[in-house]
Amino acid sequence: MQHISAQAALVKGGPLSDFSYEPQELGFHDIEVEVSHCGLCHSDIHLIDDGWSRSKYPLVPGHEIVGTVSAAGAGVTNLQVGQRVGIGWQRSACLECDRCLAGEENLCASQQATCMGHHGGLASHIRIDGRFAFALPEELPSAAAAPLLCGGVTVYSPLRRFGINATSSVGVIGIGGLGHMALLILRALGAEVTAFSTSAQKRDEALAMGANHFASSTDARDIRKHFGRFDLVLSTVHARLDWTTYLQTLKPNGTLCLLGIPPGIIQFPPSLLITGQRSITGSDIGSRGTIREMLQFVTRHHVAPLVQMMPMSEANAALTRLRQNQVRYRLVLTR
Amino acid sequence: MQHISAQAALVKGGPLSDFSYEPQELGFHDIEVEVSHCGLCHSDIHLIDDGWSRSKYPLVPGHEIVGTVSAAGAGVTNLQVGQRVGIGWQRSACLECDRCLAGEENLCASQQATCMGHHGGLASHIRIDGRFAFALPEELPSAAAAPLLCGGVTVYSPLRRFGINATSSVGVIGIGGLGHMALLILRALGAEVTAFSTSAQKRDEALAMGANHFASSTDARDIRKHFGRFDLVLSTVHARLDWTTYLQTLKPNGTLCLLGIPPGIIQFPPSLLITGQRSITGSDIGSRGTIREMLQFVTRHHVAPLVQMMPMSEANAALTRLRQNQVRYRLVLTR
Repeated sequence: MQHISAQAALVKGGPLSDFSYEPQELGFHDIEVEVSHCGLCHSDIHLIDDGWSRSKYPLVPGHEIVGTVSAAGAGVTNLQVGQRVGIGWQRSACLECDRCLAGEENLCASQQATCMGHHGGLASHIRIDGRFAFALPEELPSAAAAPLLCGGVTVYSPLRRFGINATSSVGVIGIGGLGHMALLILRALGAEVTAFSTSAQKRDEALAMGANHFASSTDARDIRKHFGRFDLVLSTVHARLDWTTYLQTLKPNGTLCLLGIPPGIIQFPPSLLITGQRSITGSDIGSRGTIREMLQFVTRHHVAPLVQMMPMSEANAALTRLRQNQVRYRLVLTR
Repeated sequence: MQHISAQAALVKGGPLSDFSYEPQELGFHDIEVEVSHCGLCHSDIHLIDDGWSRSKYPLVPGHEIVGTVSAAGAGVTNLQVGQRVGIGWQRSACLECDRCLAGEENLCASQQATCMGHHGGLASHIRIDGRFAFALPEELPSAAAAPLLCGGVTVYSPLRRFGINATSSVGVIGIGGLGHMALLILRALGAEVTAFSTSAQKRDEALAMGANHFASSTDARDIRKHFGRFDLVLSTVHARLDWTTYLQTLKPNGTLCLLGIPPGIIQFPPSLLITGQRSITGSDIGSRGTIREMLQFVTRHHVAPLVQMMPMSEANAALTRLRQNQVRYRLVLTR
């Protein structure tokens, strides 16, 4: 392969332009994947806009990638040329530290992201460490697999960490890309679920996706009706929330878990932690083992994210829809 | 029994005065205990000073009580007259709610405290639900048992909840009544321990109690040397802390657990929860099962709190020492 053709933001916040680059040499553990599908996620907008002050340009976004292995390094033993695979947020880890040895590569201090300092999936191909690509179950459609590889595992991982099952009661704040996958996965787990959203018009769809209850995410009176109800509350939004009110929706020993980083500072009275032994924590994507388990779980339980498809050539129009919160509920671009 | 002779604060913040009261009728499940030892704890000062705005006067403090059963109601089956028992912070729970059925009576919404709306242990006797009194192992001295019944289980319970064992690394903030018991229990559990204190002069004693390292609890440069080190940090103090710095002393998936309620609001940047999946939580005394387990544990491992003894007749002088932070490390009053 001489060059990979891609779409890149050339400057911070810029539109995507055609861009080609010469790929890195195919390393011992590396694979090359011919991309067929690539999900778009709010994190791609953060990357383009340099929201985390760590972006490098030209920046090729796209980290919910499905494609076919088109080449494999000499050390690749888990995948074969021609095999369909998925790639998510993380492209590598040291595989030597305590966290990696514990099967928690997503917490490795040396981890690298697919689209930070490397070029992502809005491209004809991508080269990446094959140990961070995942064989996809045959029955799982590529369009469904793509958003599960980042957004899906981001909601699945804390549900497993906190032992959510058919006896659990869970709140989900924000019914967008991540939130709607949380509802679908929670239905498959059998949990009782309350969806919190700013959009009253999402009520019917949320209930159809398996939510048992629907409430406003910003009206404290509405939230208060759910005081003491949840084992776990997942916040999938990047907005500043009324932490003091949401903490009180937890049962004793319950946990409020953030999946997105809200602006500003988290603040609440410390007594809310002592009384009822409530916890607040966060979750950061998921490990390789969790991704593999999640792929089997969603296949077995027919979890199908609600996906809107667009051709990769319309990536700028797709980003505009994402920026305007018009996506219901996840965008997948195809080549 | 006609009257119980006790010592009570007659008004908010007042000194203790001789006080006698007619006890409640001995109920079906109740026992009467002739008090021999009673620990004094900072919570007693909060009670006397109405720090939680829930005190009623006259207020008889004392909730780390050891004594001998002197009478038992018709329904008492677990204890006998003449038996030595201990009583802690909690005097009752509904024993019917989900939490109680789960063996978490300390999280029961209807729980009652020994010294809130009832008279405590600075007295000749106390009448209390026998289901919230604990038979003491024969080998456990009464003076050691008293502070373990509240302060001891308050530090022991989160160590068990978070699975602390001989592979764990734990930070303890504040080396006072609770903190020194945490060091002794952690030594028995085999954990690696770092003691954080405002008092450099406590270094040698902390190391003698089993701490492996000692650091300033208020010098951010000193705290920073321990970044990324702890599975669990227990804060035993009521002071406002540098939460942002302490959160960074946690390993990935580590937990900062508050045992006391600091003044003001907890504040930190939310990114600290996502990166490394750190948690912040609190702990509230311990269940009956945990108290019983703790009493067996400390007996088996010879955990002996460092206790200063005073006669109950000098309770006002004892409270003054407690208010002036002169106690090393726990006061126990005897009759």
